[in-house]
Amino acid sequence: MTRYLVTGAAGFVGRNLVDALLERLTPGDELTLLDREVGARHPRVRAVEGDLSEEAVLEAVLAERPGVVFHLASVPGALAEREYALGRRVNVDATLDLFGGLADRTRPPTVVYASSVAVYGTLGAAPVDARTPLQPQLSYGTHKRMMELALEDFSRRGELRGVALRLPGIVARPGLASGFGSAFMSDVIRSLAAGEPYICPVSPGATAWWMSASRAAGNLLHAASLATPGTLTLPALHLSVGQVVAALGGLFGADRPALVTYRPDEGTEAVFGRSPPLHTPEAEALGFRHDGTAAGLVQAALRAH
Amino acid sequence: MTRYLVTGAAGFVGRNLVDALLERLTPGDELTLLDREVGARHPRVRAVEGDLSEEAVLEAVLAERPGVVFHLASVPGALAEREYALGRRVNVDATLDLFGGLADRTRPPTVVYASSVAVYGTLGAAPVDARTPLQPQLSYGTHKRMMELALEDFSRRGELRGVALRLPGIVARPGLASGFGSAFMSDVIRSLAAGEPYICPVSPGATAWWMSASRAAGNLLHAASLATPGTLTLPALHLSVGQVVAALGGLFGADRPALVTYRPDEGTEAVFGRSPPLHTPEAEALGFRHDGTAAGLVQAALRAH
Repeated sequence: MTRYLVTGAAGFVGRNLVDALLERLTPGDELTLLDREVGARHPRVRAVEGDLSEEAVLEAVLAERPGVVFHLASVPGALAEREYALGRRVNVDATLDLFGGLADRTRPPTVVYASSVAVYGTLGAAPVDARTPLQPQLSYGTHKRMMELALEDFSRRGELRGVALRLPGIVARPGLASGFGSAFMSDVIRSLAAGEPYICPVSPGATAWWMSASRAAGNLLHAASLATPGTLTLPALHLSVGQVVAALGGLFGADRPALVTYRPDEGTEAVFGRSPPLHTPEAEALGFRHDGTAAGLVQAALRAH
Repeated sequence: MTRYLVTGAAGFVGRNLVDALLERLTPGDELTLLDREVGARHPRVRAVEGDLSEEAVLEAVLAERPGVVFHLASVPGALAEREYALGRRVNVDATLDLFGGLADRTRPPTVVYASSVAVYGTLGAAPVDARTPLQPQLSYGTHKRMMELALEDFSRRGELRGVALRLPGIVARPGLASGFGSAFMSDVIRSLAAGEPYICPVSPGATAWWMSASRAAGNLLHAASLATPGTLTLPALHLSVGQVVAALGGLFGADRPALVTYRPDEGTEAVFGRSPPLHTPEAEALGFRHDGTAAGLVQAALRAH
């Protein structure tokens, strides 16, 4: 019997993770979902609504002594950059409070933490691997790196079994204009699949690291079963927007690529459209996977909700 | 006219920094010293007594809008490892509160932060340089690395001009049994200079990175004048205990080395006695310096108070 806790359960990755978790629950397992509003209810699920930075909310989830925690709650990058105090409160203070509250040397809980490739900062053309320096260029990425370090420290102290996974761009978020700088990654998939025109803020040659929400959920679940704590960059497909658009054409019709109008914005392209190749043999050896092909990515991405 | 603030002003590095600062004050400069107890008073100095993690204390030092801050206050390594909550409160929370309170995009203050070589964690035999991975093995070192990242982020945001300096072992702390695992570095110097016997918890071949408190003060002051923010490992003398003992013999008499009885403790030696060579061309190019020679180190170390 395992008590699970998912923070940020109503977010994009959270919703898809909860679906995957519900499919795997065995009798006696319990699942607590935390978010400001937890939407759909389920008989096996307890909902806690509020912000992890409220003391009563933190106490409510800690009181259940969860054995496996997926900590996804986070203020996203653009907002955390603009509202520093809010970003610090959730992405640093509340996260440290959660880790510290869970810490237990007798029965260390497993904590799977959703970190981000934002820890790398601006990358050159050279492929990224385990030796690539981490030089975050946003407060969001800085705070993610700080929390990776904190989680590694709790694991070293024997108080948590922490696995930090650096997530790439996760697709396809439903609805448009989600406020993420990387929103184009989801929007181009949703628009073309629906046969709607799309104005793309990066060029067709813009490259990014892509993963479907269901694959991200699979990787997060896999992380909870790892024997060894640590911090890992997940494998991801390294694809250009043009490659993804071509895959959409292959799946939905040769007329679809013409629905895209490219109006590259230099700032967006510089931050989100120049990802170099990514080498993650460590994570692959441990069983983490990407979506396989551009077509596989698109199909899985469209099942996300 | 500059308003200076020194946190941890009554600590070992703090006291010696304040001495150096007082020698350099020009008319109109103001100096505020913060510590739980600030000892010696001086007409040019304002003392604030308390803990930076108390809101009123933080407000008192921020109200003066210091232009140059030396942030030395910290819970030391062994204590922070044992009392995690205390370490987090001072070494993380209060430090972030200080940085955030000082942040000012219009007139970014200079913040010189005393980081530590503890950010490296366990090192192998290979020389340490700018590419050496940072894998702290204590909560203290983890929190120092987290604060380096946070300070770099405030500099990137244009809200502080932050310089984090990684200090090596600073000598020679007055009195014995200071509670630091690296206490032997000071104790061997103090004991032999005084002609007293010393039981050394590491072998004569144990190597460490050494710097006198006055040299540390000189480097901290130099950091405040740097044009470019950043994080730097300071140059330090890479010496064995045997080399330092030999220098003490040269300065105080050939009978002094025989005062040492070596009773190596494997744990202490593993953590504090196996430092590999250290290459810091970046810091040296910027004008940071070590003590030059073992004899120079010992002489400067003995002037520390």
